Amino acid sequence: MASPTNVLIIGAGAIGGFYGAILNRAGARVSVVARSDVEVLRERGYTIKSPLGDLSFRPAEVHASAEGVTTPPDYLIVALKVVEGVDRVGIIRPAVGPNTTIVLIQNGIGIEQEVADAFPDNPLVSCLAFVAVSRVAPGELDHKAYGALTFGDYPRGAGEQAQRLSELLQAGGVEARLSDNVVGERWRKAVWNTPFNPGSVLAGGADTQTLLTTPGGQELIESLMHEVCAVAAADGHPLPEGIVEGNIRSTLKMPAYHNSMALDFLNGRPMEIEPILGNVVRTAERLGVPVPRLATVYALIRLLVANQAKRRS
Amino acid sequence: MASPTNVLIIGAGAIGGFYGAILNRAGARVSVVARSDVEVLRERGYTIKSPLGDLSFRPAEVHASAEGVTTPPDYLIVALKVVEGVDRVGIIRPAVGPNTTIVLIQNGIGIEQEVADAFPDNPLVSCLAFVAVSRVAPGELDHKAYGALTFGDYPRGAGEQAQRLSELLQAGGVEARLSDNVVGERWRKAVWNTPFNPGSVLAGGADTQTLLTTPGGQELIESLMHEVCAVAAADGHPLPEGIVEGNIRSTLKMPAYHNSMALDFLNGRPMEIEPILGNVVRTAERLGVPVPRLATVYALIRLLVANQAKRRS
Repeated sequence: MASPTNVLIIGAGAIGGFYGAILNRAGARVSVVARSDVEVLRERGYTIKSPLGDLSFRPAEVHASAEGVTTPPDYLIVALKVVEGVDRVGIIRPAVGPNTTIVLIQNGIGIEQEVADAFPDNPLVSCLAFVAVSRVAPGELDHKAYGALTFGDYPRGAGEQAQRLSELLQAGGVEARLSDNVVGERWRKAVWNTPFNPGSVLAGGADTQTLLTTPGGQELIESLMHEVCAVAAADGHPLPEGIVEGNIRSTLKMPAYHNSMALDFLNGRPMEIEPILGNVVRTAERLGVPVPRLATVYALIRLLVANQAKRRS
Repeated sequence: MASPTNVLIIGAGAIGGFYGAILNRAGARVSVVARSDVEVLRERGYTIKSPLGDLSFRPAEVHASAEGVTTPPDYLIVALKVVEGVDRVGIIRPAVGPNTTIVLIQNGIGIEQEVADAFPDNPLVSCLAFVAVSRVAPGELDHKAYGALTFGDYPRGAGEQAQRLSELLQAGGVEARLSDNVVGERWRKAVWNTPFNPGSVLAGGADTQTLLTTPGGQELIESLMHEVCAVAAADGHPLPEGIVEGNIRSTLKMPAYHNSMALDFLNGRPMEIEPILGNVVRTAERLGVPVPRLATVYALIRLLVANQAKRRS
């Protein structure tokens, strides 16, 4: 019998814990590096309510830092938020071995290059998560819906390691959408995320329905989406005709929804402004695409963060 | 001896009370219509601390509504905030006589036409106030600095009634800057107000220094100012070369400052969004001037207000 696939999750919050549980169910040996909740995870592991069944599991090893990891994993899954002051490269380096495939589960644009540059000889798989899961208490997750991952090699392709990961994820019970153009997939998701996330924050934590039904709101979101599409096209990833209208239509059909950045804002947590918005604006500047609306939103949200920091200090 | 000039102030808060006091000191007979503080104003009048000396005065008459006014005034001064749901025309109509000059003291763009249309036979004087005065308690005002009014007839000129008002104001101790192009003066002031006021609100009530010194902030404010200048020029009021740079330079020299809209926002009061911003965006649309940044800010601030209303309900 082949030895099980070794998986190490770094950033063992809701997303990391959930996909760890899926891979555990698929037979992998799953360990975690957790910044918080280390004691609880060591004693009791994860308790996970899910429509997929009981996903609760106990990680093989629980570390407070990657420096505690003695055997480099086959897959090192990075499920950290990309916010200011988090040095992903420094955090993961002690656990990366010569045969380790690095897997990034993270929203946004332009989040891979820094890791690709730091570990040029390791395969790098880039993933977008479509999942509604939250941490309700230390070690306790509530998985509400979805679970699919869209992923592929960075910057393109879908090699052996990505395919093996796809098999594991499907064996664990979630949809795995392999793509040989994951950067294009990121742009496709940015069409929704980049307008709705910061828009919601600047509107004081507004939900999707408030954003779309207030006079002028839908027009704003659409114009921001069109700017994202123009940047995507200039970056070599033209998006399909009608993607803006389709996004609006499907969002209008959803119940009122607070996106992740809105929830971070309402709960006083750091927000993923750079991957979701800042990197889009910088890509536009580099490629000479005018994005006056996105640039305005980006400047305003940085002002909001700066003012919050000033008021707290 | 000529009988004194009859003045009626409608909207007897900080601005109305202050200019009422100035005109009272100039020898006018000053009455007020106050929405709140009626009893206090009847019993004790205004107590006003000011670098100009003690401006405290007791109005000749204090009414809770213009319907109580029996003799139409020579000057009816409207010092109401222009916010949603305030029907200025309906509020002032009972007190407007055939010889009444209507005086609007109000920031923003496009605030006169509605009143001009409703009272086409009355002279209409349009004023911009440069004054730092606030209401600290019922009937108690704190005048900190400045006091100048810039004004003229709407839409242009500076006729007899405006000149007489100028003499009274100067006799009362404030600077009166008569202009035969008051709409141009409004545009000149909008270059500062239109970017800084809503920008501050969307940044969570940030002061001027935070807006200008956070990375990307000054660039945002400047780009919004340039859009205001383009609309002003298209509206027939080209502004001088270098007005943007001059505004930035002088603001950087001022101590950190919370503008009126920021204070309204931080105190949960209605904000003058339409005169300060909405009317600028609508003028741009009417004249075909692209203002993507101003339109973005306008959409976002309406979303913020809609979300606040939803959270309160």
